[in-house]
Amino acid sequence: MNKIILNAKPLTKETFKSFGDVIEMEGAEHFPINAGTVERYNDLADVQIDFEDGGRPVISFMQITQDTQLPCRLNVIERHPKGSQAFIPTFEAPIVLVVGPKGDLIFPETLQAFVTNGKQGFNFHAGTWHMPLMSDVKDRICIIVDRAGPGDNCDEVYLKDDHIELTVN
Amino acid sequence: MNKIILNAKPLTKETFKSFGDVIEMEGAEHFPINAGTVERYNDLADVQIDFEDGGRPVISFMQITQDTQLPCRLNVIERHPKGSQAFIPTFEAPIVLVVGPKGDLIFPETLQAFVTNGKQGFNFHAGTWHMPLMSDVKDRICIIVDRAGPGDNCDEVYLKDDHIELTVN
Repeated sequence: MNKIILNAKPLTKETFKSFGDVIEMEGAEHFPINAGTVERYNDLADVQIDFEDGGRPVISFMQITQDTQLPCRLNVIERHPKGSQAFIPTFEAPIVLVVGPKGDLIFPETLQAFVTNGKQGFNFHAGTWHMPLMSDVKDRICIIVDRAGPGDNCDEVYLKDDHIELTVN
Repeated sequence: MNKIILNAKPLTKETFKSFGDVIEMEGAEHFPINAGTVERYNDLADVQIDFEDGGRPVISFMQITQDTQLPCRLNVIERHPKGSQAFIPTFEAPIVLVVGPKGDLIFPETLQAFVTNGKQGFNFHAGTWHMPLMSDVKDRICIIVDRAGPGDNCDEVYLKDDHIELTVN
């Protein structure tokens, strides 16, 4: 069994751009709406939906039911070929994510790990491989924006001969 | 000038159904995802996007820059004919909303006011008239999911001879 050690890097638009979007106010276009009572930080993620296939965007909540302590071991990875998948936390705490490049095959040595600054959301573009998110804030809520509709939109791969050991420095 | 007094009622799926969706975990279908580490509360809002017109769903943030004290006066109302508009708070505090039924004309006597339970989000369906949201939590953040794209997607009407006085009991 091969052990792959990943060290999570800070999540930034630049480092994450081949995998998806970082959802944050920093650097965003913004302007007042709502009769000037609020400031809108606009268009933070490229919501990708395969509509021709009968898909539609949906809003869901995700409640964290198991906290994760690092270092931890991971051996499952998934992708959603028909749409992007955004996660926006309603709490302030870091989230660790492991992603791999688009493609029908995923090679463990191409995986990269990122850690949010405690406020950022992120949006996996369609086809980006990703492992289960990790956070130590049990019971807290993220908002998910992704695709619902017909067809199989989740490819899942178990790494049989490899496993990932993940740390954050 | 006519004064219309509105008293906000608790927001529920039943009372709000002709205007849009209430985004909340209560009553939602839910199931584990992410290798069993989180529970997904699925498909909480009908995200309506006029795609044929070149529209696309976008995720934005909204920061509250002015808090609102009740009773207050309102005289502007808007609608988005080409798509729904969802607001999901990342804070726990009530939000007051004033809505009116779909239609090219809006009659002040048809307006209704609702107040959230402090956790709920909501999704105005395409064409639902709504006034600026009201909350007393300055600087806090809501997530918006709505439509971007070509064409005018905001009709705004100023109530010249009427104004709304809003209270919450």
